[in-house]
Amino acid sequence: MNKHAVQHIIDSAYCFPVSENRITIRLRTAKNDVEKVWIIYESKYVIGQTQEKLPMEKKLSGELFDYYSITLDLKDTRLAYVFYLFDGKDYFYFSEDGLTANYDFKVGFYNFFQYPYINTADILDQIKWTEQGVFYQIFVDRFCIGDNEKDKSYINCSWGDIPTPKSFAGGDLRGIVSKLDYLKGLGVNTIYLTPIFRSKSNHKYDISDYYEVDSHFGSNEDLRLLVQEAHGRGIKLVLDAVFNHCSEDMAQFQDVVANGKASKYYDWFVIYGDKPDKALGNYEMFASCAYMPKFNTSNEETQKYLIDIACHYIEEYDIDGWRLDVSDEVSHDFWRNFRKAVKACKEDCIILGENWHDASNYLRGDQYDSIMNYAFTKACLDFFAWNKFNGEQMANKLSDILARNTDTVNAMMLNLLDSHDTHRFFSEINLDEEKMNAALHLLYLFPGIPCIFYGTETLTQGGYDPDCRRCMDWDGIESGKYAKTISLVKRLADLRRDYELASAQTMLEAQEGVFILRRLTKGKEIVLYINVQDKEGIADGRVIPAHSHELVLKGDV
Amino acid sequence: MNKHAVQHIIDSAYCFPVSENRITIRLRTAKNDVEKVWIIYESKYVIGQTQEKLPMEKKLSGELFDYYSITLDLKDTRLAYVFYLFDGKDYFYFSEDGLTANYDFKVGFYNFFQYPYINTADILDQIKWTEQGVFYQIFVDRFCIGDNEKDKSYINCSWGDIPTPKSFAGGDLRGIVSKLDYLKGLGVNTIYLTPIFRSKSNHKYDISDYYEVDSHFGSNEDLRLLVQEAHGRGIKLVLDAVFNHCSEDMAQFQDVVANGKASKYYDWFVIYGDKPDKALGNYEMFASCAYMPKFNTSNEETQKYLIDIACHYIEEYDIDGWRLDVSDEVSHDFWRNFRKAVKACKEDCIILGENWHDASNYLRGDQYDSIMNYAFTKACLDFFAWNKFNGEQMANKLSDILARNTDTVNAMMLNLLDSHDTHRFFSEINLDEEKMNAALHLLYLFPGIPCIFYGTETLTQGGYDPDCRRCMDWDGIESGKYAKTISLVKRLADLRRDYELASAQTMLEAQEGVFILRRLTKGKEIVLYINVQDKEGIADGRVIPAHSHELVLKGDV
Repeated sequence: MNKHAVQHIIDSAYCFPVSENRITIRLRTAKNDVEKVWIIYESKYVIGQTQEKLPMEKKLSGELFDYYSITLDLKDTRLAYVFYLFDGKDYFYFSEDGLTANYDFKVGFYNFFQYPYINTADILDQIKWTEQGVFYQIFVDRFCIGDNEKDKSYINCSWGDIPTPKSFAGGDLRGIVSKLDYLKGLGVNTIYLTPIFRSKSNHKYDISDYYEVDSHFGSNEDLRLLVQEAHGRGIKLVLDAVFNHCSEDMAQFQDVVANGKASKYYDWFVIYGDKPDKALGNYEMFASCAYMPKFNTSNEETQKYLIDIACHYIEEYDIDGWRLDVSDEVSHDFWRNFRKAVKACKEDCIILGENWHDASNYLRGDQYDSIMNYAFTKACLDFFAWNKFNGEQMANKLSDILARNTDTVNAMMLNLLDSHDTHRFFSEINLDEEKMNAALHLLYLFPGIPCIFYGTETLTQGGYDPDCRRCMDWDGIESGKYAKTISLVKRLADLRRDYELASAQTMLEAQEGVFILRRLTKGKEIVLYINVQDKEGIADGRVIPAHSHELVLKGDV
Repeated sequence: MNKHAVQHIIDSAYCFPVSENRITIRLRTAKNDVEKVWIIYESKYVIGQTQEKLPMEKKLSGELFDYYSITLDLKDTRLAYVFYLFDGKDYFYFSEDGLTANYDFKVGFYNFFQYPYINTADILDQIKWTEQGVFYQIFVDRFCIGDNEKDKSYINCSWGDIPTPKSFAGGDLRGIVSKLDYLKGLGVNTIYLTPIFRSKSNHKYDISDYYEVDSHFGSNEDLRLLVQEAHGRGIKLVLDAVFNHCSEDMAQFQDVVANGKASKYYDWFVIYGDKPDKALGNYEMFASCAYMPKFNTSNEETQKYLIDIACHYIEEYDIDGWRLDVSDEVSHDFWRNFRKAVKACKEDCIILGENWHDASNYLRGDQYDSIMNYAFTKACLDFFAWNKFNGEQMANKLSDILARNTDTVNAMMLNLLDSHDTHRFFSEINLDEEKMNAALHLLYLFPGIPCIFYGTETLTQGGYDPDCRRCMDWDGIESGKYAKTISLVKRLADLRRDYELASAQTMLEAQEGVFILRRLTKGKEIVLYINVQDKEGIADGRVIPAHSHELVLKGDV
């Protein structure tokens, strides 16, 4: 047995409560190295006198590792356990003391694994509505102009021009209201907007007043209207919480610029010296953007100010969630306080971090519900765009990604092919419509919540920011130019619902280089085959031609 | 290279801030598998354009794994990094995408490792006074009778009788006051008491009134006196927080017994049915002890009640810390709120969990400062008592234990050979004074805080509870019977201070089966050799006879 590969970490994605008396346990081994794995378990106060022994199932298989899993229903949740492994030749116990030929239960209290007690306060529950969630991300300036009465003098390009960093195209909240029926028709039920508060930029990540909708985008009343009209259609609204930094124009920062250490806001920021000086850049900022000073979110007053904003839009406007900008640079402490406050306002409000990397420490139930799943994005790029992965490598990678987090988190992961911060996926795959089609299938059928960036359904092209932020082609939509992709996206949303993917099992594998995703519920099954190779492959006895995908549906819907 | 062994986990004991601009990074590899390891790092916003490359040092070597480490001083704490490894033949990069022959920094933002930003609110700082901490744990009923005026009718045994579960020997707080000079003479500077509040048992883990010192032990005024007298001698006092459960006699539980669901305290406990019924045991309890109902610490009101108690004894009595009983069965949420409140009362108050297992999720800066290090206890038993470990296995195990937690946590770990919850260590080693002597050396010289259980210095014997809770032999102490061990303990405390072990490097290894611990500061070094074999061994050119230990001191003190 490859002893170095065997891993279990208590109180992590290897061991997590699903409910008050259900718990899932995982064990990692080297790939194809172990024949059988059991869990030996009992209440920690009686283990050794009596215990259960149950086989675990290999649920996921990554590049180097297999992941065995079991979900236990417990009467007594004070769980002690060790693993028992057979590699075809020898048997081993696995405890906190590692792999051993024997195990002495008499001193097990020193070294068994344990989940000491399931406290409800520590359980991360899936937000019910996310089970059917289909997200649509909108970069507001480029989506749709709805207010034709407004002062349009700020608009400096024609709708459809290739954007520059300083382009203002004129999209606004009323434009979104006018397209709600369109979005509903796409099968979308949650809209996530990039920032909408007062800011001099087109992206509005540099906010100078968090309590006002930017006049380019409309008014606070327009926001109220948007929420009401969206809710009326069963659509939820998620806003972008830019709490890592603000605009240099924010009154509090300007007060520090004017008064230095005498300002009562001096400690709201992290300033090296008496006064912030933009030319010197003597303060913490976002990236290297001196016009975006970073908040000191370790300061309690700043925390309160920002958290009050989060609650304000829930209480006063009834929004349904916050996406957290640059959330990994803000303290855990801040997000813990944020979660408590936000969930007290609206329990099923979603909290979505922008963490591009392993975020397990933010996803333990005390901070976020989910993150933007850029690891999934990267895997899709490696597979569809960059020729780094064959079907087997893709199945391995997605398995490793699922093993990173708990099943609950995986079910709420915001999966995306692209966003305002990446190249357009359609450009990355060289405008290959078959690949786009296959990737959309994967996006919608993979565990988690699919999120499409506005214009994905119109096969929008574009490189990195600002090129990925082109204007929606409404004329094209009206002319039926994108009918095929639009109807695919709608159909995929329907499939998610009809095949009850929220509660479906997931199996990933490859046959002859063909990637296979199976989702299985009682009496129903969806199988997605994707072949990115230059040759055909046979999977489950089916010929999957080169560069094609196939969807197989089984069971009554 | 053994690819399965290579591990790094962001935001964990593999990567932790030491201060606002210092961070320690560790990498795990298979033991003796890799020739050289480098870290390639830079601010995450510029990595790829420019980066540093520094070699990492093998600091610890466990049973299966080596741990490489480096501490970086950063100007910009938004740290991105990948590792670069050489196994004697090939070079590999190691990132979130695993081991690869090449690494593309252009898309590194997807898969480099990172510590996104050091937020001061998330740093766990070492409590300054713990650097010189030497703890002494007292089971109050068995330590010393100080109040000869009190009603002694509850005492049901003679001092020195072998205890039964129901023995009351008469020890009290004034007894401790009377022995403070003795404790100071032992080099002790922190006393940790098992519970002292109102309770009908001798151990007092079943508390009926948290606001009153139990009359067996004295009065609230005696507690005040104890703190004052202790502080006057530079000795701190840590109390036992029994917040997992209480006594069935607690007024709130009795109210539920009387009024069932109508009681306003019904939700303070977890009751299955209308009313708690001791005979049915229809409620959550500690272990299977129906007289100790478990608190529902997910309930905010219960949380507040208990946390107020914790603050009360800090604010009103000036105690210096809380040891948390059965802390792993209480929610993370509770301990987070507990920490905020307690640290607001007294910033350098120590919070010490009773977690017998891997507690890394409690030790991230938001919950405890430290735990009782029972993993260390178990290693000492395996080595000194149970013949499970030779010198090499002991060095490996202690290395693996150190690798589990951050250096900051390791420096505050409460190391112990035994406690009120184990057999007496001296009995486990068959009353072998040489082994006791060696074990005490290890206890005092290992990173962390040594804690001796009262009577260790008098070579107290005893099996499991209640036998480990025998009375102190004050006559023996006065007669000089234990002078050797008492002076050893004092000398070891002096060595800790004189050799500045708080800031010393730690090296663990074995030669010819001889265990070696080296502690190194500028110009000074302590080396401890322990040979538990039946034959002599040569270590560093020195002959270490069978069953002996040797201490070598180098440098001026």
